[in-house]
Amino acid sequence: MGGSEAGDDSKDSKPKGNRGISFLDFIMRIVAILGTLGSAIAMGTTNETLPSFEQFIRFKAEYKNLPTFTFFVVANGIVSAYLAVSLVLSILHIVMSGARITRVVLIFFDTVMMAFLTSGASAAAAIVYLAHKGNARANWIAICQQYNSFCDRASGSLVGSFIGVFVFLLLIILSALALSRN
Amino acid sequence: MGGSEAGDDSKDSKPKGNRGISFLDFIMRIVAILGTLGSAIAMGTTNETLPSFEQFIRFKAEYKNLPTFTFFVVANGIVSAYLAVSLVLSILHIVMSGARITRVVLIFFDTVMMAFLTSGASAAAAIVYLAHKGNARANWIAICQQYNSFCDRASGSLVGSFIGVFVFLLLIILSALALSRN
Repeated sequence: MGGSEAGDDSKDSKPKGNRGISFLDFIMRIVAILGTLGSAIAMGTTNETLPSFEQFIRFKAEYKNLPTFTFFVVANGIVSAYLAVSLVLSILHIVMSGARITRVVLIFFDTVMMAFLTSGASAAAAIVYLAHKGNARANWIAICQQYNSFCDRASGSLVGSFIGVFVFLLLIILSALALSRN
Repeated sequence: MGGSEAGDDSKDSKPKGNRGISFLDFIMRIVAILGTLGSAIAMGTTNETLPSFEQFIRFKAEYKNLPTFTFFVVANGIVSAYLAVSLVLSILHIVMSGARITRVVLIFFDTVMMAFLTSGASAAAAIVYLAHKGNARANWIAICQQYNSFCDRASGSLVGSFIGVFVFLLLIILSALALSRN
């Protein structure tokens, strides 16, 4: 089924297309590192203390108060660390663009990390949504009415994480494409 | 980098290993269909009406009351429908085990659907966790204390969905392996 225009299958074959793909892979990993690290820092450093006349609920809102946000910070931290380490393999693929096994290994870890990041981002998104809208049926109040700036930071921090998920999707496809052309 | 024990690269080459992988792919898609469809049905049909003496909160608890649970049901429904359709390509790969382009296409859609399913499952898990534990700081009460059977069904329905995520992970790796051996 097509796609095998580079007919040779010697180990050191370096089809130009795959080198381009490997370079794109490297650039996109940098983008994903910025996204996930930014998300971890944005969520990890946000906090808001309400003025004392607010008697209804009084607390210093930070990510540690919500286990889901803690999970989000940890997931983004681990994924950005993984991405930094994976740059080594990415560089290796630029040099040895005919590599196969290491690409399969990379697809495996990329897929695991994508699932982990998607999990953290979606769980946090569910809680952010609840914080904004509340849920009348469950008597869960929209805490964003009190904690505006905390909620804004928490919502904003989701963006980098979802960019990371999208980049992982592209990375996995690029690796599969490179494999199919080897 | 190794892995090219089947030396020929003709289009119709049918390495035995790839046929085995394609067959495993087919079986695992069936498992994932059962998991995701089961999850959609389990969450979609659960409801609990509290006896009328319960005055504190009175409502018929069902998935429609929580947007995250609605997303969960929709995501699982769409993913199980996709999996059913993808069986066609899976069968094609058993017959034509040297296929490349269709494997890349399958990796693409599998990855997208995996992210979608992980998103639905994790968002629902975040809400289920909140329903069980509540959050004192945000004044969100643990509604599971009132809605025991609703919560049990909702928690249980997560299992099939996470099995689906795990199967997708295996499917993507198997496809990558098959590609690397072509």
